[in-house]
Amino acid sequence: MRVIVVGFGVVGQSFAKLLLSRSADLYSKYGIKPRIVACVDNDGSAVAPAGLDLQRLLDAKKTKGTVGAYERGGKFSPLQVIESVEAEVVLECTPTNLNDGEPGTSHIITAMRTGKHVISVNKGPLALAFPSLIELANYNGVMLRFSGTVGGGTPILEFAKRCLKGDRITSFKGILNGTTNYILSKMEEGLTYESALQDASKKGYAEANPSLDVDGFDAAAKLVIMANWVMGMKVTMKDVKRTGITKVTVTDVKKAAQRGNAIKLIAACDSRQLDVTPSEVAKTDPICVNGTLNAVTFSSEHSGQQTIIGRGAGGMETASAVLRDLIEIRDTTFS
Amino acid sequence: MRVIVVGFGVVGQSFAKLLLSRSADLYSKYGIKPRIVACVDNDGSAVAPAGLDLQRLLDAKKTKGTVGAYERGGKFSPLQVIESVEAEVVLECTPTNLNDGEPGTSHIITAMRTGKHVISVNKGPLALAFPSLIELANYNGVMLRFSGTVGGGTPILEFAKRCLKGDRITSFKGILNGTTNYILSKMEEGLTYESALQDASKKGYAEANPSLDVDGFDAAAKLVIMANWVMGMKVTMKDVKRTGITKVTVTDVKKAAQRGNAIKLIAACDSRQLDVTPSEVAKTDPICVNGTLNAVTFSSEHSGQQTIIGRGAGGMETASAVLRDLIEIRDTTFS
Repeated sequence: MRVIVVGFGVVGQSFAKLLLSRSADLYSKYGIKPRIVACVDNDGSAVAPAGLDLQRLLDAKKTKGTVGAYERGGKFSPLQVIESVEAEVVLECTPTNLNDGEPGTSHIITAMRTGKHVISVNKGPLALAFPSLIELANYNGVMLRFSGTVGGGTPILEFAKRCLKGDRITSFKGILNGTTNYILSKMEEGLTYESALQDASKKGYAEANPSLDVDGFDAAAKLVIMANWVMGMKVTMKDVKRTGITKVTVTDVKKAAQRGNAIKLIAACDSRQLDVTPSEVAKTDPICVNGTLNAVTFSSEHSGQQTIIGRGAGGMETASAVLRDLIEIRDTTFS
Repeated sequence: MRVIVVGFGVVGQSFAKLLLSRSADLYSKYGIKPRIVACVDNDGSAVAPAGLDLQRLLDAKKTKGTVGAYERGGKFSPLQVIESVEAEVVLECTPTNLNDGEPGTSHIITAMRTGKHVISVNKGPLALAFPSLIELANYNGVMLRFSGTVGGGTPILEFAKRCLKGDRITSFKGILNGTTNYILSKMEEGLTYESALQDASKKGYAEANPSLDVDGFDAAAKLVIMANWVMGMKVTMKDVKRTGITKVTVTDVKKAAQRGNAIKLIAACDSRQLDVTPSEVAKTDPICVNGTLNAVTFSSEHSGQQTIIGRGAGGMETASAVLRDLIEIRDTTFS
């Protein structure tokens, strides 16, 4: 399978490393031999129809800051590469933009228009336009997959879709943002909101602009993706009632603790309503996890409640989700 | 699809109820129309090639104690029914016997020999002879599925097999027996082992002979099934190093609590060794669940650690696992 990688940050590079380390294993186990035939970042592009040398691609990025430094690299734009290079799959991993979804949305649309399947780890386009992107994928007869957008390497979307087959999920709720969960966990240990946020930044968990996390945008984006995919709703970011954690005080946290509870930023969907809001959760509830962990509880009609817990981020973890998507696309379309 | 139900206890009856309540939905959503064409319990049998009337079947069992009371019911034995009635699938739900696996093993072997797929919720045959049963299924070109044997309605086996596709699970550990977990949770609240066991019996969580639970046999059986299915090991009950919870004292539990830990009956597999033994687990570990919950943490090579939590038992929950198996058999063999 020929893959075009658009955006070459942590996830893109981890995916290249994963392919490097597992090529023999992937072929023997799944009969798949993914080749990255093009890679493009902000400053340049590298194209090789027979497959890029991934070690040299990673070296170019590391030493020169752009894949354009790859031998015979060039200055093609993402859209030019997506349109003109022959490939089966486009992997979209440019940064999430929850204002207008760009440039990810244009990349995805161009890929689908030119008959390419899309794997997105970029939440923006999906959070803002899930229903229309799925429609476009169907219209063009291609697949759109996005396992890495929710839960990092934790297969939350697959779990809901595959493992509970034959049942009907009636609602779900969860901790979908590791940064805010880290901050709230630290506040439980006694830190103020401000020092907890600082600590999270120092550890690299919080972005330069923390609003995406602490105002609940990231959790809301994931909630939207899940509501569409798991519950078949047709919703976007504007349908989410969203409250962040900036107004949670140490006193709130302490009072909750006295009741045997913890305050968590809970994203919830009950098939009618989408909410992201700080909520008290019993410490004995499986969903009540600490640190940067994510957790989701699904309620289904017949098989009860199930909770799935794992790290919600990590380059290699998310790259492994991309690989799962790739295998699924192969299994669905080439068999 | 025509199904023969062997054993008509809680799970068998729940499965019949599930089909009754969902027949329209199952057909519209999955294109499957399961018909129970024969049902046999200890005292009788009911056979109807066009499909039994499930409400009358349930009524016969309820009022007369046997499906033999169904109109034109008979006295055929399970083996006679399995051999002579035409069907695609045999659902084996007689009680688990971890001594010699009977009568379940004979039922399963006869079903496969006569070309029928098997869904087993009976752990005995699988715990004692997993490798040879799988071989026999392959030899006869039929499928053997057993989602309901581990985790009740919680799709632990599917999770490992499907959701982590493309990755390699290197080890797993978990709480696989709800009864012992209930007892240990109660001991944490201050009850002695004996009163906790009594409480569990009163609530219907423990069997008349509690050895299956408290000596770790049930957890070991599930561990064997998982090790074979998830890790590709070829092991049986005798490969498990097993210690029960009968020697855990309130003092042990208290000391653990002082260290921020809890004592849990942990079943663990690291691709070389199978252990069931009471172990100290940090209370902050996602696996540290209370009451009758089950929890399993999978460690995989690339996507990190993931934990799945849910009720490990329940008639309707387990019936929903049977339904998942049925849909999988249909999807695999009829497409």
